[in-house]
Amino acid sequence: MVNNQTFFDKLFHPKSVAIIGASAKLQKFGSRYLDALLNFGFKGKIYPVNPTTSEILGLKCYKSVKEIPDTVDVAFISVPAHLVPKVVMDCVDKKINFIVVFSSGFSETGLEEGKKLEEELLKIVKGGFTRLIGPNCFGVYCPGGGLTLLPGADFPRESGSVAFISQSGGLAERFCIYARSLGLRFSKVVSYGNALDINESDLLEYLIKDPETRIIAMYIESIKDSKRFMKLIKEAARVKPVVIWKGGLTEVGSKAAKSHTGAIAGKKEIWHAFFRQTGAIKAEGLEDLVDISLIFQLFSKPCGRNVAIICVGGGMAVASADACEIYGLKVPDFQPETVEKIKMLAQPVGVSLRNPVDLGSPFTPPEAYQEILKIAALDPKIDVLMVLVWHLPLFYGEKTFVDEDFAKKTFEAPIYVKNSIKKPIILILYETPLELEMLNAEKVRREIKNKHIEVGIPVYPNIERAARALAKFIEYHEFLRRNS
Amino acid sequence: MVNNQTFFDKLFHPKSVAIIGASAKLQKFGSRYLDALLNFGFKGKIYPVNPTTSEILGLKCYKSVKEIPDTVDVAFISVPAHLVPKVVMDCVDKKINFIVVFSSGFSETGLEEGKKLEEELLKIVKGGFTRLIGPNCFGVYCPGGGLTLLPGADFPRESGSVAFISQSGGLAERFCIYARSLGLRFSKVVSYGNALDINESDLLEYLIKDPETRIIAMYIESIKDSKRFMKLIKEAARVKPVVIWKGGLTEVGSKAAKSHTGAIAGKKEIWHAFFRQTGAIKAEGLEDLVDISLIFQLFSKPCGRNVAIICVGGGMAVASADACEIYGLKVPDFQPETVEKIKMLAQPVGVSLRNPVDLGSPFTPPEAYQEILKIAALDPKIDVLMVLVWHLPLFYGEKTFVDEDFAKKTFEAPIYVKNSIKKPIILILYETPLELEMLNAEKVRREIKNKHIEVGIPVYPNIERAARALAKFIEYHEFLRRNS
Repeated sequence: MVNNQTFFDKLFHPKSVAIIGASAKLQKFGSRYLDALLNFGFKGKIYPVNPTTSEILGLKCYKSVKEIPDTVDVAFISVPAHLVPKVVMDCVDKKINFIVVFSSGFSETGLEEGKKLEEELLKIVKGGFTRLIGPNCFGVYCPGGGLTLLPGADFPRESGSVAFISQSGGLAERFCIYARSLGLRFSKVVSYGNALDINESDLLEYLIKDPETRIIAMYIESIKDSKRFMKLIKEAARVKPVVIWKGGLTEVGSKAAKSHTGAIAGKKEIWHAFFRQTGAIKAEGLEDLVDISLIFQLFSKPCGRNVAIICVGGGMAVASADACEIYGLKVPDFQPETVEKIKMLAQPVGVSLRNPVDLGSPFTPPEAYQEILKIAALDPKIDVLMVLVWHLPLFYGEKTFVDEDFAKKTFEAPIYVKNSIKKPIILILYETPLELEMLNAEKVRREIKNKHIEVGIPVYPNIERAARALAKFIEYHEFLRRNS
Repeated sequence: MVNNQTFFDKLFHPKSVAIIGASAKLQKFGSRYLDALLNFGFKGKIYPVNPTTSEILGLKCYKSVKEIPDTVDVAFISVPAHLVPKVVMDCVDKKINFIVVFSSGFSETGLEEGKKLEEELLKIVKGGFTRLIGPNCFGVYCPGGGLTLLPGADFPRESGSVAFISQSGGLAERFCIYARSLGLRFSKVVSYGNALDINESDLLEYLIKDPETRIIAMYIESIKDSKRFMKLIKEAARVKPVVIWKGGLTEVGSKAAKSHTGAIAGKKEIWHAFFRQTGAIKAEGLEDLVDISLIFQLFSKPCGRNVAIICVGGGMAVASADACEIYGLKVPDFQPETVEKIKMLAQPVGVSLRNPVDLGSPFTPPEAYQEILKIAALDPKIDVLMVLVWHLPLFYGEKTFVDEDFAKKTFEAPIYVKNSIKKPIILILYETPLELEMLNAEKVRREIKNKHIEVGIPVYPNIERAARALAKFIEYHEFLRRNS
């Protein structure tokens, strides 16, 4: 019998795929997926299937998968729900390894007809050689295998260390788009929809052993086999972080989940206990899921809770200290020598040089500013340096108060000091005001963000999100120590 | 004796001001303030004061305020701390109504010297005719009076209904910049720093009766006279919403507050009781303060808790319903007729048409989409319509799937339906992915945001912020009903 790993490798790195339901109408999901695969640069063979056409986008089209004169590793199906059972049957006959059913119109509709169709599907694949993902899903994104998700957004071609498995197709797509822009890179992403055959546990089991995956992120509304899932999550959390966003935790959310993927979302209390017991990391929403995954991607070693905060503005310092403490971080006083050293570099008045550091003015000369960051980080009490920047509009907004060299050296200060300190750094780069005149500042913000991510400095848009992600990172490593 | 209103009107609408400490060096705070006032278009007389110069920015410069051959309503002081008492003494002699002391270096330093200087200042002004704001503050922004805050960001010239009083100068500036870009407009903004003479209670007392101010927002770290403040807040909350962000609620935050404005921030528990008892609205940070103020600015009438959610994507629907319920809103089932009507307009599969509505595809024809919004809002169970939009990148991103007319009609749908339904609408316009290639989508996002704000539709970047602000709006009106 093939083991889980070899078996799933075919799903993620197929040599040949069939796209059933691709048509000349490019707005249709089947054709959009074909187009997306071609654009993404899938290297294997692609066989469009449609009984009414002989060619699509320059590729020969087959009337049925049975006519394809080749083995097929994965079939993607996008035909109306009532035609799905027949098409799946053909795939089973053809001994195709995996079927991904994009089509919706099954149990998630809540209608008898949809439930019956889904039962019919299950009978066809149950216990057989061919395994099925979906229905009602967006499929698989695996840069290493040249596969991308429906409907075909432009995802990174390079592989990364984050896997994402999602009951929701739309959220799989949004996660990838949003996370991509914050610097996340992916190993495998699977939208598994109604989880009729292959479910979250099957995918999890594979990802635990997948050497390419260092972090597992999940969006789930319900689970099919809770005992198995619980066992696997416990196993997973001991070898790599598992970050879970549970949708449908509230009563209305749970009702909505039912009509989304036919899921029974389960009691809030049960889920709270689940997070306590398993070591899985709870994410509070899409942003949180991305934020937490990002810090695990960029920080390789565990760290302590003591942060140094460097910012401009006393209110900012107060608010930042509040936010850190709320999320369980600590903002300890510096050693007296640290304060003395910073004092020699900072402006004389309007400052507070204990931790949190309020530098008073955004116009501290950049060389002094860089040195201050370094001194704060090197304080023996400090584990992590947090640098707050909200003054992009002052440097790149309507009016410019400094020259470009000054601005560049200021905003890239964390990059300059990164090599001389071995402690982790987080940049908090506040969003620019939402005005059209601020688009230049926004452009610079995005450039600065990219440069920091490239050297391994996570960037967050506010202190709350940074503190929350860092706290989850630390808590996970504490969990590992307790359970080692 | 002059009453509070007539008296403070001179602070906000001075006929003549002196700027003490303005110099030829334009980087200095005094000169920057002078420059800012000129740019902002202050219509009254401006008298720079500096014993070492005869002219600054084309204005005649006086050696001392005593030499100014005119009455002076407000003097702004920006000289080194140790010179402040002498200068203030001159202002008192000159019978200037208000002194705004920008200078820092007083009790907030925690040093004996600073505390002594502050005591000296207090002795000079205590109980006298001249009143003092600060020290260690950024002053006053009042578009109606032509005044702006230090250091001189470009604030709106038109007046609005939101007042903001802030212990922190930096946060006063950041609040105005950030809030401006989200559509907030201001009556009066005061950064009052160390609150040596004029404090939060004095300002509050004025704002309660200020006809221009409909909403009072505050950032406070500490209060000077808690009994008076409590009484005034109770009085204020009964006539207009008072939204308070309390800085320094945690232990470290409180420590930071002490070195910011010399404030004793007070126990967390006391503040919790304060919010429960007074009807003041608690904001959890700068964004929250702006979000809550915005909904009060744009929504004039009270509304109920039942929201209709229209979005694209089942996961989005689940997550939105979760967020609404967490903040105490309700997402009730529509009446059967509403669902039937929407069904005739939505695509046939991949949708969920109960509330929350998942339209399945972002490519619903805009006329049908507009009609769906209208039908959902008109359901008799619904109080507020929430429209979620995350698909800007699909329409204005790397690839464009629709023409401009389609996109425009889709994204402006809430504006189109606004006139035909009398219920409040909120647009949730998700931020675009943070990539340089997405700057065009970001530009469109900002344009769409502006257009909605203009017609009275608040715009938030995610469902959590929208739900939180709406819940606070509703809770305040419930408080008013209970206390009427």
